[in-house]
Amino acid sequence: MVAGNDGVFTWAAPPLKFGVAALDEIGLDARTLGLRDVLLVTDAGVRETGVPDRVRDTVQACGVKCEVFDGVAVEPTDVSIADAVSRARERPWDGLIAVGGGSAIDTAKAVNLLATHGGDLLDYVTPPVGAGKAPPAPLKPLIAVPTTAGTGSESTAIAVVDLLSARIKAGVSHPWLRPALAVVDPQVTVSLPPEVTAASGMDVLSHALESYTAIRFDTRAAPAEAGKRPAFSGANPISDGWCEQALRLVGRYLRAAVFNGRDLEARYHMALASTCAGTGFGNAGTHLPHAAAYPIAGMVDAYQPAGYPAMPMVPHGQAVAITAPAVFEWTYPAGPDRHLRAAELLTGETFSRADGAQVLPSVLRELMTDIEMPTRLRAFGYGEDDVEALIDGTLRQTRQLGVVPRPVTREALARILRACL
Amino acid sequence: MVAGNDGVFTWAAPPLKFGVAALDEIGLDARTLGLRDVLLVTDAGVRETGVPDRVRDTVQACGVKCEVFDGVAVEPTDVSIADAVSRARERPWDGLIAVGGGSAIDTAKAVNLLATHGGDLLDYVTPPVGAGKAPPAPLKPLIAVPTTAGTGSESTAIAVVDLLSARIKAGVSHPWLRPALAVVDPQVTVSLPPEVTAASGMDVLSHALESYTAIRFDTRAAPAEAGKRPAFSGANPISDGWCEQALRLVGRYLRAAVFNGRDLEARYHMALASTCAGTGFGNAGTHLPHAAAYPIAGMVDAYQPAGYPAMPMVPHGQAVAITAPAVFEWTYPAGPDRHLRAAELLTGETFSRADGAQVLPSVLRELMTDIEMPTRLRAFGYGEDDVEALIDGTLRQTRQLGVVPRPVTREALARILRACL
Repeated sequence: MVAGNDGVFTWAAPPLKFGVAALDEIGLDARTLGLRDVLLVTDAGVRETGVPDRVRDTVQACGVKCEVFDGVAVEPTDVSIADAVSRARERPWDGLIAVGGGSAIDTAKAVNLLATHGGDLLDYVTPPVGAGKAPPAPLKPLIAVPTTAGTGSESTAIAVVDLLSARIKAGVSHPWLRPALAVVDPQVTVSLPPEVTAASGMDVLSHALESYTAIRFDTRAAPAEAGKRPAFSGANPISDGWCEQALRLVGRYLRAAVFNGRDLEARYHMALASTCAGTGFGNAGTHLPHAAAYPIAGMVDAYQPAGYPAMPMVPHGQAVAITAPAVFEWTYPAGPDRHLRAAELLTGETFSRADGAQVLPSVLRELMTDIEMPTRLRAFGYGEDDVEALIDGTLRQTRQLGVVPRPVTREALARILRACL
Repeated sequence: MVAGNDGVFTWAAPPLKFGVAALDEIGLDARTLGLRDVLLVTDAGVRETGVPDRVRDTVQACGVKCEVFDGVAVEPTDVSIADAVSRARERPWDGLIAVGGGSAIDTAKAVNLLATHGGDLLDYVTPPVGAGKAPPAPLKPLIAVPTTAGTGSESTAIAVVDLLSARIKAGVSHPWLRPALAVVDPQVTVSLPPEVTAASGMDVLSHALESYTAIRFDTRAAPAEAGKRPAFSGANPISDGWCEQALRLVGRYLRAAVFNGRDLEARYHMALASTCAGTGFGNAGTHLPHAAAYPIAGMVDAYQPAGYPAMPMVPHGQAVAITAPAVFEWTYPAGPDRHLRAAELLTGETFSRADGAQVLPSVLRELMTDIEMPTRLRAFGYGEDDVEALIDGTLRQTRQLGVVPRPVTREALARILRACL
């Protein structure tokens, strides 16, 4: 350990209930948490799958009141969250159930925060974008039910939202935002379209890769104020184990889950991979692909991906994956062995330093091509003229930039982004 | 998945703060948990190391009242716990800090339960020994500070106590017994005597091996009452990862930690191994070595181990390890690949089925001989005349017996115990 560096890491994850038919017990789980009246938060698209109403019925059958709010925006914004909060304030409730992808779970976290303690979203958003205020007391219990195998939001203490005013995605982060329970039932992912399966699978992969290659916690200086570590504080021996497991599972099962959504074995293991990666990255941190994903998604004008609702958007998993090959080529010198090991875990093959910086990017590009993910920023409508604005947006993501394993300069970002055009 | 079997596993662990000098922040942690007045629970031997008073001073420096109770028994009994509870009731407190090995942490869990909700220990002890009652509401926050790298109690929802009346060790288990935070600072283990390091290290090893070789959760029938799984519900893909990591670390660092207590790298990794194994086994379960350890420790008459207080006792790690080689020889046919893999993780060597059932027992015996652990039940004073009573005591440990990977008969137990004489 280097004198003056941080010697301590922290780690936390919510209790987990995982498995086929886990959802059948959610009414009992709500009762065990002491809930009598819950607000179920979801979006209209997820509601069409029938899962939210099935959850409501199961909960009500256990004597717990449950009302469904299905107004979550596909990409949550400060405006859509303010709307959800005012709806949530119309009635009393003592806990929340979020059913959906990252949008629904992140909205539920923000609703729980703002409806419980008041204030404006920007009060709590991480500086420099927001004021970074901490909630004054714990929130109400939130049960998170992910319906995509990707977000990891069921495990984390972070909610990510699109700030319309600033044209940027930003995060609210505090341990009290973490769900009280994550219920992961792989059966609910069976009906996801291949495009959503591919994008959310690449999000899982990138969570794991970014956490695994982030700076190590003990190469950071000790926090200036005792105990005040950043929300992302670098790779540690516990997060490493989760990331390795996730990489192994994604490498083995993502293609199969995309090619045949009814392959329950593949769905099961992708759900497990998502749980592992969410648990790992929530404590270690994501870095450059996630930092760049925020402006890439936030500045979109016209791109409409197949498999998603008809509106201009870059799905989070696509926004993250698009820069990943170029980023991991650039980060390679900071930790060659970890990059090679990640490629080994993804492929089951063996690599050595002689194989060099191109191995991991090649593995990623091959996977993305196989599962028909976009591989060029131009696919989203970006060109040379957007590079400076994308750099500006990336440089505002201080939480992620703090754990990138190489110094981030405008020049480095420009090279990476131009390589992705 | 087999129809009628359980498709679901659960997993939980407390938030963790891990690292060199982690203890320096415990006052901040107490404040973050909202504590203003805490009872610090420890034993007289641990108090002599100075750690409990250092914790008290750190907590008080953050404006949190803290009183030390150092009356924990070396092997907690129903009587010693009743005494601690009546001491705890003498003053108000809104949270607990446990500093010590399994004895202190388990006593603090029981004190938290009984001082908060009243009743008698036997009301809450797992059936058939006790009534298996659930606490009516959550307990107060407990911060657990392990000073040995062995118990794993800082991660688990179980307290193990010696029931003097029944001459048996038994457990109290409920999710609300789980600490609110585990603070693991490897520096505090540096002063442990070699005998304690060896025994607690073998306890870590056995937690991992037993969880790893327990029945798989989905080979159990679905619970008769929906959602009511046993506290130990079998190996699952999450617990497996933790166990593998623990086995790797113990194999690499236990000898070094025993041979030179000041080897901080070895201490660090044994503390990490203990954390991994505690987190893994708390959800999967221990099986036969732990079941047999209860009567082996409970029926002791005269054995006084070096390195421990002068009283008749079989340290938990010695009681567990003594039957482990014979048990894992017997369980081998239930899962040869897992047994061979465990031996590989412990040694870094490669084994195949041709190496057979003896590989893992040999690895364990060699390790126990190197670190000067007892390897024969006779060392504790047991002989042929005690076998029937040891079998009776083992058969009462229904929690553990539920996840043993082969049917447990009196004949099988007799063979195993006689092989250990």
